Amino acid sequence: MAVYENGNGSVFANDAKINLQRVPNLSDFFPDLPKYPNPLNENKYFHPSKGFFATETQFVAKSVTIDVSNPNPPNQKYFMLAGPREKVVFKSEDVKAAIVTCGGLCPGLNTVIRELVNGLWHQYGVRQISGVLAGYRGFYSSDTVYLDPKVVDSWHKVGGTMLDTSRGGMDLKKIVNSIEDRGYNVLFIIGGDGTLRGAHGIFEEIKRRGLKVSVACIPKTVDNDVAVIDRSFGFQTAVEAAQAAINAAHVEAESTPNGVGLVKLMGRSAGHIALHATLSSRDVDCVLIPEVPFFLKGPGGLLEFLDQRLAENGHCVIVVAEGAGQDLMPKSGDGAKDDSGNLLFQDIGYWLSGQLKKHRNENHPGKVFAVKYIDPTYMVRAVPSNATDTLYCTLLAHSACHGAMAGYTGFVAGPVNGTYCYVPLEQVAYNQHLVNVNHQKWAWVKSLTNQPEFVKPDSLP
Amino acid sequence: MAVYENGNGSVFANDAKINLQRVPNLSDFFPDLPKYPNPLNENKYFHPSKGFFATETQFVAKSVTIDVSNPNPPNQKYFMLAGPREKVVFKSEDVKAAIVTCGGLCPGLNTVIRELVNGLWHQYGVRQISGVLAGYRGFYSSDTVYLDPKVVDSWHKVGGTMLDTSRGGMDLKKIVNSIEDRGYNVLFIIGGDGTLRGAHGIFEEIKRRGLKVSVACIPKTVDNDVAVIDRSFGFQTAVEAAQAAINAAHVEAESTPNGVGLVKLMGRSAGHIALHATLSSRDVDCVLIPEVPFFLKGPGGLLEFLDQRLAENGHCVIVVAEGAGQDLMPKSGDGAKDDSGNLLFQDIGYWLSGQLKKHRNENHPGKVFAVKYIDPTYMVRAVPSNATDTLYCTLLAHSACHGAMAGYTGFVAGPVNGTYCYVPLEQVAYNQHLVNVNHQKWAWVKSLTNQPEFVKPDSLP
Amino acid sequence: MAVYENGNGSVFANDAKINLQRVPNLSDFFPDLPKYPNPLNENKYFHPSKGFFATETQFVAKSVTIDVSNPNPPNQKYFMLAGPREKVVFKSEDVKAAIVTCGGLCPGLNTVIRELVNGLWHQYGVRQISGVLAGYRGFYSSDTVYLDPKVVDSWHKVGGTMLDTSRGGMDLKKIVNSIEDRGYNVLFIIGGDGTLRGAHGIFEEIKRRGLKVSVACIPKTVDNDVAVIDRSFGFQTAVEAAQAAINAAHVEAESTPNGVGLVKLMGRSAGHIALHATLSSRDVDCVLIPEVPFFLKGPGGLLEFLDQRLAENGHCVIVVAEGAGQDLMPKSGDGAKDDSGNLLFQDIGYWLSGQLKKHRNENHPGKVFAVKYIDPTYMVRAVPSNATDTLYCTLLAHSACHGAMAGYTGFVAGPVNGTYCYVPLEQVAYNQHLVNVNHQKWAWVKSLTNQPEFVKPDSLP
Amino acid sequence: MAVYENGNGSVFANDAKINLQRVPNLSDFFPDLPKYPNPLNENKYFHPSKGFFATETQFVAKSVTIDVSNPNPPNQKYFMLAGPREKVVFKSEDVKAAIVTCGGLCPGLNTVIRELVNGLWHQYGVRQISGVLAGYRGFYSSDTVYLDPKVVDSWHKVGGTMLDTSRGGMDLKKIVNSIEDRGYNVLFIIGGDGTLRGAHGIFEEIKRRGLKVSVACIPKTVDNDVAVIDRSFGFQTAVEAAQAAINAAHVEAESTPNGVGLVKLMGRSAGHIALHATLSSRDVDCVLIPEVPFFLKGPGGLLEFLDQRLAENGHCVIVVAEGAGQDLMPKSGDGAKDDSGNLLFQDIGYWLSGQLKKHRNENHPGKVFAVKYIDPTYMVRAVPSNATDTLYCTLLAHSACHGAMAGYTGFVAGPVNGTYCYVPLEQVAYNQHLVNVNHQKWAWVKSLTNQPEFVKPDSLP
Repeated sequence: MAVYENGNGSVFANDAKINLQRVPNLSDFFPDLPKYPNPLNENKYFHPSKGFFATETQFVAKSVTIDVSNPNPPNQKYFMLAGPREKVVFKSEDVKAAIVTCGGLCPGLNTVIRELVNGLWHQYGVRQISGVLAGYRGFYSSDTVYLDPKVVDSWHKVGGTMLDTSRGGMDLKKIVNSIEDRGYNVLFIIGGDGTLRGAHGIFEEIKRRGLKVSVACIPKTVDNDVAVIDRSFGFQTAVEAAQAAINAAHVEAESTPNGVGLVKLMGRSAGHIALHATLSSRDVDCVLIPEVPFFLKGPGGLLEFLDQRLAENGHCVIVVAEGAGQDLMPKSGDGAKDDSGNLLFQDIGYWLSGQLKKHRNENHPGKVFAVKYIDPTYMVRAVPSNATDTLYCTLLAHSACHGAMAGYTGFVAGPVNGTYCYVPLEQVAYNQHLVNVNHQKWAWVKSLTNQPEFVKPDSLP
Repeated sequence: MAVYENGNGSVFANDAKINLQRVPNLSDFFPDLPKYPNPLNENKYFHPSKGFFATETQFVAKSVTIDVSNPNPPNQKYFMLAGPREKVVFKSEDVKAAIVTCGGLCPGLNTVIRELVNGLWHQYGVRQISGVLAGYRGFYSSDTVYLDPKVVDSWHKVGGTMLDTSRGGMDLKKIVNSIEDRGYNVLFIIGGDGTLRGAHGIFEEIKRRGLKVSVACIPKTVDNDVAVIDRSFGFQTAVEAAQAAINAAHVEAESTPNGVGLVKLMGRSAGHIALHATLSSRDVDCVLIPEVPFFLKGPGGLLEFLDQRLAENGHCVIVVAEGAGQDLMPKSGDGAKDDSGNLLFQDIGYWLSGQLKKHRNENHPGKVFAVKYIDPTYMVRAVPSNATDTLYCTLLAHSACHGAMAGYTGFVAGPVNGTYCYVPLEQVAYNQHLVNVNHQKWAWVKSLTNQPEFVKPDSLP
Repeated sequence: MAVYENGNGSVFANDAKINLQRVPNLSDFFPDLPKYPNPLNENKYFHPSKGFFATETQFVAKSVTIDVSNPNPPNQKYFMLAGPREKVVFKSEDVKAAIVTCGGLCPGLNTVIRELVNGLWHQYGVRQISGVLAGYRGFYSSDTVYLDPKVVDSWHKVGGTMLDTSRGGMDLKKIVNSIEDRGYNVLFIIGGDGTLRGAHGIFEEIKRRGLKVSVACIPKTVDNDVAVIDRSFGFQTAVEAAQAAINAAHVEAESTPNGVGLVKLMGRSAGHIALHATLSSRDVDCVLIPEVPFFLKGPGGLLEFLDQRLAENGHCVIVVAEGAGQDLMPKSGDGAKDDSGNLLFQDIGYWLSGQLKKHRNENHPGKVFAVKYIDPTYMVRAVPSNATDTLYCTLLAHSACHGAMAGYTGFVAGPVNGTYCYVPLEQVAYNQHLVNVNHQKWAWVKSLTNQPEFVKPDSLP
Repeated sequence: MAVYENGNGSVFANDAKINLQRVPNLSDFFPDLPKYPNPLNENKYFHPSKGFFATETQFVAKSVTIDVSNPNPPNQKYFMLAGPREKVVFKSEDVKAAIVTCGGLCPGLNTVIRELVNGLWHQYGVRQISGVLAGYRGFYSSDTVYLDPKVVDSWHKVGGTMLDTSRGGMDLKKIVNSIEDRGYNVLFIIGGDGTLRGAHGIFEEIKRRGLKVSVACIPKTVDNDVAVIDRSFGFQTAVEAAQAAINAAHVEAESTPNGVGLVKLMGRSAGHIALHATLSSRDVDCVLIPEVPFFLKGPGGLLEFLDQRLAENGHCVIVVAEGAGQDLMPKSGDGAKDDSGNLLFQDIGYWLSGQLKKHRNENHPGKVFAVKYIDPTYMVRAVPSNATDTLYCTLLAHSACHGAMAGYTGFVAGPVNGTYCYVPLEQVAYNQHLVNVNHQKWAWVKSLTNQPEFVKPDSLP
C-alpha cells in the first residue's frame, strides 16, 4: 500500500484516505536548516538502539475503535508520534529557552516546569533556560529568572507556579519584540485555551517575521476541557482533592435534619471535575454541569427533587460546576470579563444556596433546614500533583522538549489514546472537550444519583 | 492543717482560704439515697486497688504557678477530681441514659458519643442507652435511637454526629416532661455555651420537680472558647485541618504578582483557631481576631500594611476569624439571630475581600492584583477527630460516665491542667475563654507575622 | 474493503489480514439460546439511543501507532468493544450471580465488588447475588453472603476485601460441582494470574459439562504486570501510597552521615511499582527491578555505586522490587511455594540491608553508616482506592456485567488504549507485562537516578 | 506565710516544707556576672508590661491534685517558671550559640531547630548561631553550618533533622575543648536520655573549667518516656502516623480467614506509643508493652488468646512495642549495643510473627492462617510535626532561649501540667517515665481490647 500525502495534511492509501495531522517544523520555513545528531546518542543512559528514535512516518490514531462492517471510519485522524528524533535543529549551546505559565493554577504546574528544565539540561545539554515571570506580561515587563536542575529540584513537591502566573498581558508585538531582542529560540508556553490562542498568534507572528523559534505548548486547564488529547495535567489530582469537600458536605448534610451539602467545583464550560468527583465519591444526590440545563421550580425541577430527596433520605448532597445554571441567575448586566477575557461568572453556588433556603422558608416554614455551601476551588487547585499526575507532567514536558529540539513548532504535546503525540496548536486552541451527555458515563451518573432529567413537562413531545 | 468548708463551697485552712468548687450530687437533694458498690469492683479488667477510686476530698488546682514571695494566690480555685467513685447511686439495670448533641459540628462528636456508650455499657453494665435525635427538639419531637457498643463501633472514624444536631428547640417544659415521661435518669448533653445554658435550665427544672436525674455535660465548641477547662475537644483536629486552607492561600498568593490569600477561620468571640493555625503554619502575614480591633484606612491600618507587604514580598496571606471586624461592616440592621440565639454575623472574609480589591483598584490602578478568598469552615469541622482528639474525647466521655453514675449532676467534665475534673456547670455555661492579648503568645504571633498593632495615631497618648 | 473472518478469529480485508480476537459467547455452545431485550431499554436513566449499544462488529486496536511507510503493522490485534449489548441471554430473574476474590489485597477490590453488585442490580435487575468467601475454597467450604446495593454501600471507602480472600483452594471439581449445585450462572472472578489460570480451568470444565454459565474475570495484580490491558486496578493508588515510604527513606537517609534509605516495593516479576514510584518521587538514587539483573561487588556493581554516591552526596536512597536480585541470595533450597503456587521469595530488602552493612563495616570501618530498611507492602496495598482508581474499578465492573449478561464467557474486561474491551481469558492468564527496559521510560529513570548499568567488565564486547 | 529556702533547694513555709527545684544559673558560679536589660524591652511586638517577665520566685507545682483530708502531699515539687527574664547575662552581640541534635529521628526536630534560631535572632538579636552537624561528634570532627531565619525558614515542613544526627561520638574532652576553642557560650542540646546524660557531663566539665557557657537541653524521645515534663515533642504526631499502620494491619487481618495483623511500634522501655495508638485506633485486639510481661504458651498465654480470638472473630490485630517480650527471645549472646550505648534489641515483631505461624502450623494444621507483620518505625518518625506538635516545639524552643539568655544552665525546658518550666537536667537525664499499669488508662486499654492479664496459673495466690 503506497501512501500519498496531499498538501492539506492528508494522504491516500489505495482507496483509503488517511488524515495525517502534521505539525509544522522550522525546516518547513527554513529549507536549508542545518541538522545535528541528537545529543541523546552520546548520553550514557539512553543508548539509542533501533527503534529508539521516533520518525516522521509514525502516527497515532485518534480513534481506536473500528467497525468491521464499515472499516473506514470517516473521521479518523492521525497525529505525529512524539519522542526524540534522530536529528535536532539546534546546537545545544545555541539554545536559549524560555518557559512561561499563564492563567489560573493547576496541580502539576511546577512539575511541568521542573521537567522542561531537566529534559533540556540533562537530555539536550541546554544551559540557557529562562523562566518568564507572571504570564505573558513577563516577556516585556520584568526580568526573567535563571533556571537549572538545582534551582527546580524540589518544585514538584509544591503547588502553584514558582514562575508566577497572571491573566492577560497578551501584547503580541511587545512579546515577539522581546523574544527577538532576548534571542529566545525555544519557547514553552503553558496555559489554558486563551493562552493557547495567544500562543498561536505568537507562532504566526514569529513565522511572519521569519524568526527561527520553536513554539511548544502544554495545555493547562484544571477543567479538563482540552480538545484532542486524553486529559489535562492536574485533573486527576483535582478530582482527588475535591473528595474532601464532598465528604465534608456529606457529613454536614447527614448531621442535621433536612441538611443540604452544596459543593461548587471548577468547570466553566465543561463539567468533567464535577462529574468525575461525583463518580468517585458516590455520596452525591445530584450533579449539575454546564452541558445539561436545569431549572428550579415546578414539576421536574431541582426544588421538587430536593423536597423529595429530603423527604426520603433526610439529607441531600449537590455538586454544581461553576459554569452550570448561568442562564438562571440575574445578569450582572455589564458582561464583565477577567483579564484572560473570560466572562466573569456569578457564583452559582452562592446563588443556588440562597434559592434553596428561600424555597424551604416559603414552602416548608418552621421545618429545620440548613444549606452548607462549600467552595473548595483554591484548596483543590493549589495542591501539588499526585503521583499519577507527577508522572504525566514529566512525560508531557519531555515530549515537548523532544519536539522543540527537533524543530517542531506551533504544536501541543500530549497523549492521544495513551501515546504521546504532537498536535497542531490550532486544533487544541480553538476546540473544547465537553462532557458527552449521550455517553453511558452520563447515564451512569444519573442512575447513580437518581437525579432528574430536568425536562419541563411542556418540552415533552 | 484542718480544713473547714463553708456553705459557699470554700474551706479555710489555717489562715489560708481554699476555694473548693464542689458540684452538686443527687444525694444532696435526696438525703436517703441508697448507694451501691461501683460495678468496676467486679470488672475483670480493672482490679480496683488502693487509690483507684477518686474520693470526695480530692481536688485539682486551677492555678499551678505559685509565687513564693506571695504564696497565697488570691484567685486559686480547686475543682473536684474526676474518676470512678467507690459507690454509685444507680443500679445498672435501673439506668436509662440519654445522649443529645446540639449546635454546630465539631471533630470528635461521634467519638464522644461512642465512648459514652462504651463507658456506660462495659464499665457500668448499663443496657438502656438512647440517642436523642437532632438536638434539644429531639427530646419531644421524635423517636430516639437505641445505642449499644455494636451500633457505635465505627463512629469514631466518621465526622459529624450520627445523632444529628440542630440549633434551637430549647423548650424547657417539653424537654423535662419528656425526660420524666420516658424515665431517663442519666443525661449527657453535648453542646456549646448556648446549649450549656439550656442544660443549666434543665438541671434547675429537674431539681425543682424533685427528679432523680443526673445531668452531665461535655462542652463542645470548635472555637475553643470554653471557660475553666484546658481546651475543647476537636480543637487540635480543627487547627490541623485549617493548615490545608492556609497552604492553599499561601500557594495562590505566591503564584501571582501582588497575590493575597485570605482565609476565614472559625471563632465568633475568640480567635483561638486563627491564632493557633497561624502559629502552626508560619506562612501568615497577618491574623485578625475578635479580641483585637483593627481598621482599614490611614496610617497604622490594614490597607497600609497590605501595600507595604506587597511592595516588600509581592504577596500576603491574611487569616481572619469569623468574629473579627464585625464593627467595621455595615449593619444588617435587623439583629438577626440563628436558632441557637447567636447573632448572625456578616461574612467578614467576603466583605474584606471586596474592600481589599476596592482599595487596590482605586489606589493602584493597572497593577496586577488578586485576592483568593477561602472559607474552609465545613471542611475543617466535619472531619473525624485525629489521634490526639480521639483519646481526649474518650477520657472526657468516661469521666462524664463516672461522674453521672456517682450521682454528680449539673456538672461539666473536662481537664484542668491536664487532670480530669468535674466543674460546676454554671461556671462553664456563663463564662468564655478569650485569647489573652497581653500574653507572650500573642506578642509572639505579632513578632512572627510582623503585623501592625492597629493603633490609630490619635489614640496614642 | 470486504471483511472475511476465518475460523481462527482473523479476518482478511483486501490483502490485509485483520486479527480479530473474539471472546466466546454462550450462544456459541448453545445455538438455540434464547435472547432477550437488554433491560437498559426500560431504564429511565439510560434512554438508549442510536449508537448506545455496542455491536459484535466493533473492535478496538491494540496498537495505535502506524508507520505510514509500512501501514500494515504485523502484530496488530483487535479486541471486542465492551459495553451493553442490545440483547442479553439471561432473564433478570433467572440470574444467580457469584463474586469471588482470590490472592493478595489490592486497592479497589471492594470497589470492584460494590460496582458488580450495583451494575447487576440497577442496570440488569438481578436480585440474586452471592459473595463467595475467602477465595476459591469458599465455593465448597463455606456459606456465601447475600449482596445487594445497601450491603455494599460504603465498601468503596474501605481497603481490603469484605469477601475475604485467600491463596489456593483451587479444587476444580469441587468448585464446578458447587456452581452446578448452587445454580450459579454468572461468575465474576477477581484475581491474579494464578487465579485467572484457575478461572480458565473452570471455564473449560463448565464448557465440558455443558453448563450455561458465563465466566467473567477482572485481573487483580497490584504489581501491574497484567498482559493486554492498559493497567490493573489499584496500581495508581499503590504508587501514590508508596511515596510515603520513599519520603521517609529519604528523610532518614538525609538526616544522618552516610545514611541509606532502602525501600522494598511489590513486584515479583515486574518492577512497575518500583519504577513508577521512583519516577513520581525524584528522591531515589537507584531502583532495582526484576527485569534488570544487578550484582554487588567489583567495578560496575551496586557497592561501588553506593560508595560513590555516599562520597558525593552523603546519603543514598535505594528502591528495590521484591523480585529483584533473587539470583544473588542463597537459595532456601526447598523451592517452597505459597498457597497460590508462587515460589516463596527471600526478602531481598532484608538481605540487601545486611550486605550493605557488611560491606561498609569491612571496607569503611569506623565511619558512621546506617541503613534504614522500610517494607511498606501492607500499608501500600491495604488502603482504599484513590479517586482515579475508584472510577476505573467502576468501569471495569460495569463492563464485566454488560459482557456476562450478553453471554460472553471466558473473558477478561479491561481497557485497551483507554477503551474498554473484552479480551479472551487465556491471553491474559498466560501472559505477563514486564517493564520494557529498551523503552525511553527506563532510560529516563536511569538518567534521573544516574544509577549504573550493572554491566560486569568481562561482559563487555 | 514566710518562705525560707535552705541550701538544698527546699523552702519551709510555716510547718509546710516546699520543695523548690531551682536550676543553676551562671551567676551562681560567677558572682560578679554583669546583667543587661532584656532586649525584649526594646522589641516593638512585645511591649513588656507588668507581669510580662517571669521572676525567680515563680514556680510550678508538679502535682496539681490535693487531698483536703491531707493537704500536704509528701512528694510535691515545684519547678521554676519558664519565660523571659527582666535581665539577661549576655550582650546579644557576644552570644555564640551552637545547636546540636543527637540520636534517632523524631517529628518536630527541625521545628525545634528553626525556632531556636528564630527565638535567638528575633527576640534576642543574636547573630552568631551555628548548627553542629551529625550529633556530638560534629563538635570536633566537622565544620558547622551558619544558621539564620532565612536558612531555616521552611524547615518546619520537613521531617528529620537538617543538622544530621548520629549516635555516639560522646568524647567529653574533645567536645568541651571545641566549645572553648570556638567560643560558644550558649549551647542547645536536643536528644534522648543518653544524650542528656552526655549533656550533664558537658555541663559539669564546663563548670569545672570555669567557662561562662549556658547549657540548655530539650529532651527528644519519640517513645515519650521522658521524666518530669508532660510529654516529649513529636509524640502526638507519631501516634497519629501509627494509625495508618494499624489500619493496614486491621484491613489485612479482616480480609483473610484467621488473619493476624501484627504491628511493631517504637518503645524500648515504655509502651506509650503502642498504648496511645491502640487507644486512638480501637481496632486492636491486644497490645504488648515492656511494662507488662507476657508469655506465649499455656493457659493465660498469648497463643491461647490468639486461638480464642480467631475462633470468635476470625481475625486479630496485635500491637507490640519494640521493647516488649525481650525476655522471651533467645539471647543474641553478645550484649551488642548501638552507638548510643543502647542494648541492641532483637526484633520482637519478626520473632513473634514466626512464633504465631509455628503455633498455628503445629496446632491447627491445614487451616488457612496468615500473619501480616508491619514495622512502620521510619514512616512514623520521619514525618514533619503536625500542627499540635509544631506549636509545642516552638514553645519549647522559645522557653529554652529565654532560659539560656537569662544565664540558666544545666537545665531542661518543658511543660509541667501545661505550664513551661526549667527543670534541673539530672532529674530528666537519670529518670524515665514508664506506663503506669496501675492507672485507669491501662485498665481501660484492657477493657477495650479484652486482652488477657498474662498471669500464669501458678503465679496466682
